[in-house]
Amino acid sequence: MSYTPLRVDRAQSADRIERDVETLAGGAFTDSPTAICRYAYTDSYRRTVEYFADQLEELGFETSYDPVGTLVARNRPHGSPVFGMGSHCDSNRNGGKYDGTLGVACALEVCRLNREHGLDLPLQVISFLEEEGSGFGSMLLGSRVMAGRTTEEELLEGIVSSDDGEAFWTHAERAGHRPERWRESARALDDTIGWIELHIEQGRTLQDRGIQVGVVDAIAGYVHAEVSFEGRADHAGGTPMGTRSDAALAAAETMLAVERLAEDAGAGTVGTVGKLDLSPGLINVVPGGARLTIDVRGVERSAYRGVLDEVLSSAGRAADERSLRMESRERVEVPPTPLDESVVTALERAATAGEVTYTRMPSGAAHDTMFVAQRVPSAMVFVPCLDGISHSPLEDAGPADAAVGAELMLGAILEIVTDHTG
Amino acid sequence: MSYTPLRVDRAQSADRIERDVETLAGGAFTDSPTAICRYAYTDSYRRTVEYFADQLEELGFETSYDPVGTLVARNRPHGSPVFGMGSHCDSNRNGGKYDGTLGVACALEVCRLNREHGLDLPLQVISFLEEEGSGFGSMLLGSRVMAGRTTEEELLEGIVSSDDGEAFWTHAERAGHRPERWRESARALDDTIGWIELHIEQGRTLQDRGIQVGVVDAIAGYVHAEVSFEGRADHAGGTPMGTRSDAALAAAETMLAVERLAEDAGAGTVGTVGKLDLSPGLINVVPGGARLTIDVRGVERSAYRGVLDEVLSSAGRAADERSLRMESRERVEVPPTPLDESVVTALERAATAGEVTYTRMPSGAAHDTMFVAQRVPSAMVFVPCLDGISHSPLEDAGPADAAVGAELMLGAILEIVTDHTG
Repeated sequence: MSYTPLRVDRAQSADRIERDVETLAGGAFTDSPTAICRYAYTDSYRRTVEYFADQLEELGFETSYDPVGTLVARNRPHGSPVFGMGSHCDSNRNGGKYDGTLGVACALEVCRLNREHGLDLPLQVISFLEEEGSGFGSMLLGSRVMAGRTTEEELLEGIVSSDDGEAFWTHAERAGHRPERWRESARALDDTIGWIELHIEQGRTLQDRGIQVGVVDAIAGYVHAEVSFEGRADHAGGTPMGTRSDAALAAAETMLAVERLAEDAGAGTVGTVGKLDLSPGLINVVPGGARLTIDVRGVERSAYRGVLDEVLSSAGRAADERSLRMESRERVEVPPTPLDESVVTALERAATAGEVTYTRMPSGAAHDTMFVAQRVPSAMVFVPCLDGISHSPLEDAGPADAAVGAELMLGAILEIVTDHTG
Repeated sequence: MSYTPLRVDRAQSADRIERDVETLAGGAFTDSPTAICRYAYTDSYRRTVEYFADQLEELGFETSYDPVGTLVARNRPHGSPVFGMGSHCDSNRNGGKYDGTLGVACALEVCRLNREHGLDLPLQVISFLEEEGSGFGSMLLGSRVMAGRTTEEELLEGIVSSDDGEAFWTHAERAGHRPERWRESARALDDTIGWIELHIEQGRTLQDRGIQVGVVDAIAGYVHAEVSFEGRADHAGGTPMGTRSDAALAAAETMLAVERLAEDAGAGTVGTVGKLDLSPGLINVVPGGARLTIDVRGVERSAYRGVLDEVLSSAGRAADERSLRMESRERVEVPPTPLDESVVTALERAATAGEVTYTRMPSGAAHDTMFVAQRVPSAMVFVPCLDGISHSPLEDAGPADAAVGAELMLGAILEIVTDHTG
């Protein structure tokens, strides 16, 4: 296969992406004066999606909404193969302007470049509803519906608005959608031959290593668990060291075990204790109770499961040595999502052709692509964000990096579509 | 010196002590239906002190109140030497019936035995005001006033009611006392030749070792400090292990260092981390901040100070290794109080004579005796309490053990007074 690099005007792309992002950071598109706050079925959200729909229609795309409100835009009729791109444009309630929105803006930019370069590639842009879960407390909701990984009961009753407690279903109907047809959402991917989502990294690897783009070849799975120790709350003055059952010390040992075992596991496995509660939590009382959370992630399930198993064994030993009762509970596991090697290597070739520095990397965070990848060969592109900050008004990313990302997407899609049709 | 053991009817003493304690656990003597709750200047507190005053007057004691309301009862006129005993009869707001009250009840029992055995010992009973600090947030207040370790400003303005915010001074006046004469409180100890306070242990050493009585030869000093670490709050998924600045892990290392260094210090030194706050405290965010408290105690100041110094050094190293900023703040130090060897050995001889099992031990908790001991040769007697529980309605102790304690006090006082006057 021969491959001729495109000559893309990156500065022009950067300007257009910046204009999109800054426009959507304006007052009509957020419910907060100090942050981006928009979530499913609000006016600010509707205006944001319509902004993208309008832009895409100008480029000759036909736009529609799936039964719950995910935007789907195509430049080919249903039944014809298309290559998909997109992300989400809802935000955290105190969010930044890049998370999600930048991915939809870059997909739009690819569509603009497609026309300018006369490529006539068959494209589809999706802006998924309610990725952050800010409106209904349920993350990745739009892509989960599209993947058929929800139930009618959930949509009718289980998932309710964080604001008024009314069902997702009711809100979807009120917004003019047809939630009773939610199973038809899956049709949007029937003709999709590949998928790329661009997103800010939400980490500092690219920034710290001075790399322009991350080519994401897997999305980490994770397991969340909770461990509690119960000992005896004693007077800190009246209780000799050897006679204590101090729950906090077993928690401390467990925290350090999480770090050590995650490091030993390799394969990019990470482990975190983010929350610890001691009781009674007084300066002069030996803690009788301690409860901590464990988050272990990685792209190799056996590696992160192994870490959790060993952490729990270690916690059990600590409890025995300290005469404590230990209980653990697994809250949730989301398995890893390997991404598609052909899409990943197409992105790598585009990076090489464009003289762009890149690295293969996993995504530690969850993304809509997890659900798309269940049906469609998929990959992701990460662009650097300042100090890894996301889900905050302090979130920052460079339009120039995003333009490079869009160029790589275009290059990869061009190669894949040419192979597919040629 | 020869010493003839008294033959005390322990069962009778136990009955009388139990009657006192149970009476004072009744509805007229507490403001809570489910716990003992009485503190300075409340009706339940006044009735409790008056109960003791009445009992002592029946035994021929003259009772009075010092300028802030501490009960002082003597069977000799001012100017004549007396041996002091007592404790406090205020409680925590959700307290038990033994803490403090048992010590006053046992002092009263010694006075009864003194008459029954025709000993005519010169005795003084003190029930200190507001030991627990439940009314005005200031622990050991009555004994501190008597030791002259307060200031007029504190009493006038600094120490205020936890209920209505009004000054201690105002409340003392309203209760009929003369706070403007607070310096005269010290006179109560002018003729006091020795002092013994009986108290529940508030630990499990006596119970676990099956010992009847603790002879307390020192009250531990303590230092309270706070350490905080500041790192970087990162996404638990997007941040590789080697690139984190996790404040919680330095806190975990510091918690374990407190334990290890306190154990190594010996001399009964104890160290506790009772409180730890992580921020932001979310399951999927690497903790950017951690703040913990440190309580180190012991009867040897150099030992517990040394532990704190080494803990802070260790915390500093942990911060360096993890690229964190560390800050520490010493909140308060209370130096140890060595008790008087002659009073301690008199109690030991009384225990031996009475065939009572005993051990010398330090008090890890603070007591009014800390302030009395600054002027008067003092010791304390500990009696076992169930599972070391105190400051709780679950507090429990045996009247039979208290009776043994009262007998030892009587024996020791008899010996000391005989030596003093003979």
